[in-house]
Amino acid sequence: MSRSGTGATAELFFEDLTPGRSFDLGVTVVDRQEMLDFARRFDPQWYHVDEEMARQSHHGGLIASGFFTVSLFMRAYVDHVLSQAAGDASPGLEELRWLAPVRPGDRLAVRLVVLANKPSTARPGFGTVTFSASMDRLGAMNQPEREVLRTRFRGWFVMRDPDTLD
Amino acid sequence: MSRSGTGATAELFFEDLTPGRSFDLGVTVVDRQEMLDFARRFDPQWYHVDEEMARQSHHGGLIASGFFTVSLFMRAYVDHVLSQAAGDASPGLEELRWLAPVRPGDRLAVRLVVLANKPSTARPGFGTVTFSASMDRLGAMNQPEREVLRTRFRGWFVMRDPDTLD
Repeated sequence: MSRSGTGATAELFFEDLTPGRSFDLGVTVVDRQEMLDFARRFDPQWYHVDEEMARQSHHGGLIASGFFTVSLFMRAYVDHVLSQAAGDASPGLEELRWLAPVRPGDRLAVRLVVLANKPSTARPGFGTVTFSASMDRLGAMNQPEREVLRTRFRGWFVMRDPDTLD
Repeated sequence: MSRSGTGATAELFFEDLTPGRSFDLGVTVVDRQEMLDFARRFDPQWYHVDEEMARQSHHGGLIASGFFTVSLFMRAYVDHVLSQAAGDASPGLEELRWLAPVRPGDRLAVRLVVLANKPSTARPGFGTVTFSASMDRLGAMNQPEREVLRTRFRGWFVMRDPDTLD
């Protein structure tokens, strides 16, 4: 029996993650205090941490560290997919684009699509799944207004077929 | 006069970031409590947050969220380069590889090399610099033991030539 990301019994396996399958990862709201705390610790550049200086610059106000934004994506991915899936770490990102500034209070709609899946050559019993993910800032009436982040990445997932499990 | 990442007068400009130039970004030590706090908030999968479950698994103990590790890289990059440089955000990462697990107490040597630089077509007065960065876990006698992270990314930097500055 394989564990999901939360340690419970997994319901989603490699075989379920077929190309074209998409997941709605909900809407994440950018909390001002948390955005600042993250930047002070990990990315203390003035346009991330100094409100007055940021306001007087071409940024027009504080913008989020890109690693804060992608960390918010990660949490949404855990909550909506990995909490049910027999996932097991990731070899990395093939691309990560920060397409527009993210600001306090922004509401970001997160989506995930499976691009490809194939058995892992390096890890017997596991498959490698390639995903594309995006975060869209919502405007009035919750309409997508601007894509702010896009990434393509891979993850390892346990195969359901018990013969290949240890 | 252009600002560095800390808001002070910049000393490093686009023209200084020539291909082959490398930067020693020091050694970062992975703090157990901070690693756990990050994972609980952004990546609460059992192998990042449940010590007992992680110990009994093939992971052999807690491993860091990949976004925590890359956030530690970001801080080292700010402290050693962006704090002096006239940088202005990043369009994204072209590649990010998590090559080996990172664990509490690991000492990670961080390095950065300039791969390429060219004037930005999208942003007059700015240039785009492509970097390669790595984090190596140190072993006995501070010898590099294992590369744990590698990334290739781009950043925008102000050009020193005042004609192109606004």
